[in-house]
Amino acid sequence: MREGAAFEVQERDAVYRAIATRRDVRRGFLDEPLPDALIHRLLSAAHSAPSVGLMQPSRFILVRDQGIRRAVQAAFLQANERAMATYAGERREQYVSLKLEGILEAPQNLCVVSDLESERGHQLGRHTMPETVIYSTVCAIQNLWLAARAEGVGVGWVSILDPPRLAEILHIPANIVPVAYLCLGYVDHFGTESELERYGWESRIPLDQVISYDTYSGEHKADRVESAKA
Amino acid sequence: MREGAAFEVQERDAVYRAIATRRDVRRGFLDEPLPDALIHRLLSAAHSAPSVGLMQPSRFILVRDQGIRRAVQAAFLQANERAMATYAGERREQYVSLKLEGILEAPQNLCVVSDLESERGHQLGRHTMPETVIYSTVCAIQNLWLAARAEGVGVGWVSILDPPRLAEILHIPANIVPVAYLCLGYVDHFGTESELERYGWESRIPLDQVISYDTYSGEHKADRVESAKA
Repeated sequence: MREGAAFEVQERDAVYRAIATRRDVRRGFLDEPLPDALIHRLLSAAHSAPSVGLMQPSRFILVRDQGIRRAVQAAFLQANERAMATYAGERREQYVSLKLEGILEAPQNLCVVSDLESERGHQLGRHTMPETVIYSTVCAIQNLWLAARAEGVGVGWVSILDPPRLAEILHIPANIVPVAYLCLGYVDHFGTESELERYGWESRIPLDQVISYDTYSGEHKADRVESAKA
Repeated sequence: MREGAAFEVQERDAVYRAIATRRDVRRGFLDEPLPDALIHRLLSAAHSAPSVGLMQPSRFILVRDQGIRRAVQAAFLQANERAMATYAGERREQYVSLKLEGILEAPQNLCVVSDLESERGHQLGRHTMPETVIYSTVCAIQNLWLAARAEGVGVGWVSILDPPRLAEILHIPANIVPVAYLCLGYVDHFGTESELERYGWESRIPLDQVISYDTYSGEHKADRVESAKA
């Protein structure tokens, strides 16, 4: 009965706490392997995410091999060089000073991919919005991220990677889409704000600037707000 | 200090419980409006999701107007007719018997959209994987979904909608992508399994069938597993 029942206030607050204090972690990983049982709990959390038509398209590649991780890091460095070249002046200096991945420092890497062609789910919900297949995989990633926060495990999502190159390194076939490359490891504590806020790259938008009523409103001026600078 | 500190076991378990007992809810909504303070908590949870480069591209359209909801439901019915026509025999009968939306029964609808062109975040992380903008919005939706579970609020994601038609109804401009149309409302309890499992549309894949090590493995045979039939 308890399964579908109401949450106690303390339980509810714990869920909000995980949501509010989850961070994208790129540094400070402890040099301690993640126990298999813990990894299993995290992947179970991901695997119980909603999926369109109960398709469950997410597949998980647990990466520990040092050679593979070095290849992924080399791919990051190459992509990051190209990204860096698009910035100039102060913004470029700021970009260069940011730490954007922990591929080799984190004891565990995880690539999450989505099988777009799986017959599971019998196409339910995918006729009009086939993109919900990949969205299902993103929901799985967010589940894992919150579970990890509750376990004291930091997660960093590395999006500065060329997907075809990543697919090549991890032998991901053409019909499978790489969605996220994650770095995981225990951390001593989580920052009180995101690193990008802390180092002045960007500030947060107030919530009321992203809400409208009944129809989309031009009052969503969030992107015209001046960004904070360090 | 508590903010970035470790979770107590009970707190951790509450997070896992929200993840495990979250459901896609299409029926059983109580006829009771959601308090503004509650909606604010849910949207705050969504708004604190990770976003690429701290871009925060998600925008939230709270829909209560009956005329608009009737138009959305008409769009669902039209899309559902087309989806129905793709099934035959027993599978079609099963499809017809499923309840796939609660647009008018739920006291609150919410459309979550993504502003792909926002300058916020200064393109960080988007050079190689621009799709992470929409992924950020999906993370926000999953945050909201879990917070809602902890609040006793059921959420149903309606993906059987033609996005251009939805954009027309809600006056969503061309540069803004509709990601999810959600139906929200209090429920008495949450089902112990998903409706699609319960009614035999699809069964769950065992976790070990979706995990591989170091590289993508052909052993991911999840989609070749025979589906359960009611």
